[in-house]
Amino acid sequence: MTMKPRIAIDAMGGDDGVPIMIAGAALARHRHSDFQFLLVGDQVQIKTALDNHPNLRAASEILHSDQLVTGNEKIAQALRKSATSSMGLAIQAIKRGEVSAAVSGGNTAAMMAMAKLALRTMPGIDRPALAAFLPTLDSNDVVMLDVGANTTVEAKNLVEFAIMGAAYVRIALGIDRPRVCLLNIGSEDQKGKEEIRDAAEILRGLSGDHLDFGGFIEGDKINSGEADVIVSEGFSGNIALKTVEGTARFVTDLLRQAFTSSIRSKFGFLVSRPATELLRHHLDPNNHNGAVFLGLNGVVVKSHGSANAAGVAKAVEVAARLVEENITSRITQDLAAIASGVIPGK
Amino acid sequence: MTMKPRIAIDAMGGDDGVPIMIAGAALARHRHSDFQFLLVGDQVQIKTALDNHPNLRAASEILHSDQLVTGNEKIAQALRKSATSSMGLAIQAIKRGEVSAAVSGGNTAAMMAMAKLALRTMPGIDRPALAAFLPTLDSNDVVMLDVGANTTVEAKNLVEFAIMGAAYVRIALGIDRPRVCLLNIGSEDQKGKEEIRDAAEILRGLSGDHLDFGGFIEGDKINSGEADVIVSEGFSGNIALKTVEGTARFVTDLLRQAFTSSIRSKFGFLVSRPATELLRHHLDPNNHNGAVFLGLNGVVVKSHGSANAAGVAKAVEVAARLVEENITSRITQDLAAIASGVIPGK
Repeated sequence: MTMKPRIAIDAMGGDDGVPIMIAGAALARHRHSDFQFLLVGDQVQIKTALDNHPNLRAASEILHSDQLVTGNEKIAQALRKSATSSMGLAIQAIKRGEVSAAVSGGNTAAMMAMAKLALRTMPGIDRPALAAFLPTLDSNDVVMLDVGANTTVEAKNLVEFAIMGAAYVRIALGIDRPRVCLLNIGSEDQKGKEEIRDAAEILRGLSGDHLDFGGFIEGDKINSGEADVIVSEGFSGNIALKTVEGTARFVTDLLRQAFTSSIRSKFGFLVSRPATELLRHHLDPNNHNGAVFLGLNGVVVKSHGSANAAGVAKAVEVAARLVEENITSRITQDLAAIASGVIPGK
Repeated sequence: MTMKPRIAIDAMGGDDGVPIMIAGAALARHRHSDFQFLLVGDQVQIKTALDNHPNLRAASEILHSDQLVTGNEKIAQALRKSATSSMGLAIQAIKRGEVSAAVSGGNTAAMMAMAKLALRTMPGIDRPALAAFLPTLDSNDVVMLDVGANTTVEAKNLVEFAIMGAAYVRIALGIDRPRVCLLNIGSEDQKGKEEIRDAAEILRGLSGDHLDFGGFIEGDKINSGEADVIVSEGFSGNIALKTVEGTARFVTDLLRQAFTSSIRSKFGFLVSRPATELLRHHLDPNNHNGAVFLGLNGVVVKSHGSANAAGVAKAVEVAARLVEENITSRITQDLAAIASGVIPGK
């Protein structure tokens, strides 16, 4: 049996405020008539935004909050707003069983801290991790985790990330036996940090029917499609994620410069436009939006601060999918099976 | 007074062996008639390769070695070949004063270990760092360090990297007051690891006429041209460097796919070719080749294993430039000046 998704939206969270978050939720609602929403934030702004989206209004309840967690707020400061801010109330709503997931485009560190405090980590998981999609040369995206929740880890944390990431990919991409690699600075056995080498040793033993451990992967192979899951501590993972984003933008900026450098190239650009539009679509971060906090008792999804409505809708769909497919119990099953030496089927 | 560069080439080091290394040295010699070379490696292969390059032959001496340091060799193993391998002999030649620099396309970790043992770190420098060029939207490249020599660092190491990186950019790019940023996972003061925050605190105090501390920079801004020097520990630095390389290749691969997806786009591609060739040239790693070990008593340059002759020539030119401009004494001057609270002029 699958659950009907009711999702809390932190309407105040993104860089572009309420209209974008509401437009994103409306787009998701338009595509999925069973989605229900709890819209958390300034009720005047939300009501105004809903005027353009009667479909969403009919499927939503509003929870008022005029308190905002800002982007540069310290964690301790943010936590004091757990019961009053739009972000905090959206997460609390999961805890109270009023919604099955929460989506926010706000401060990642504050979200992590609030979610951990309110929902607690799953039994058997020491540290939750933030997992994000990245485009590859394949038709499938690759999932990278951790991309920012933990700056230091032990080997066992990396192993947990690998198991959670594999469970996530089995749900999100439908790959039965995801290829899981550890991000490292060399592909040879003796390269990198001790905890990574130790994690590799353990993962070699766990590799089996439902998790295919592929060894180490370097930064230049992230988008190659060789891995379905790339595991890292959160510092390098965040650097890698943002470097992919930044370099993709850099190269397309260079391309635009090149295409507008002469009349001849402008003409060529117009002719090739359908092709370059496909490229733009494939690289658009909005099409890979929705980073998930794995390892919590509840589904919390971080939308990119600068996401547009399509991006927010994508993040909402990621949240709904994880609720429907019950990610938390899937991870629990995998952990239990691994404790007994077997990883279960889908 | 500038020194005439005599450069040792580890002819066995690159992925494509002696012919490419010799062709690269020949290209550098062709552009700079004052360059002299010590070619280290299998003398039969080197002599054969020199048949095509009489100009280089006239400016070279051969030092025979048939021992190779392989790519996956452990450091301890490699160090045992310090006095016998082509890489080891090229580095030893600096120590003996027979050459002023060495260039190799071989195993980076082995090079670092051999160079550190043979040349020792400069007075006042705790840890040497590997510095590499990356392309930006600006006309100038950005220098990133450390890209793989140190997987863990303290704040003082990051500060030393910043000073060495600034000295390197003043020489290599002719920027009087380089903008130096610390690679981090957020731009706000409280983000990231303790040693990075501590290094920022110190660098704020050192920022002055000749080093402009720009705070934290995230992975998505590496190619933006905002920084001239990006400082990191070697693990994340290596991940970032390779992720830039890999993503640039990924996007250009996507572009090629897009351009060949229809007859219309193929036509557009042919028309725009001069523009896309410029892009390819700007992104080609060979045009940014030559990573430098800063902080040693001698100039050691790592050429990318897969560099072509143009790439190897670039690495040789980087080495020659650093010899001519006396990088070691420039870093010593900067360190001394900073100890007394002032950074010297060029």
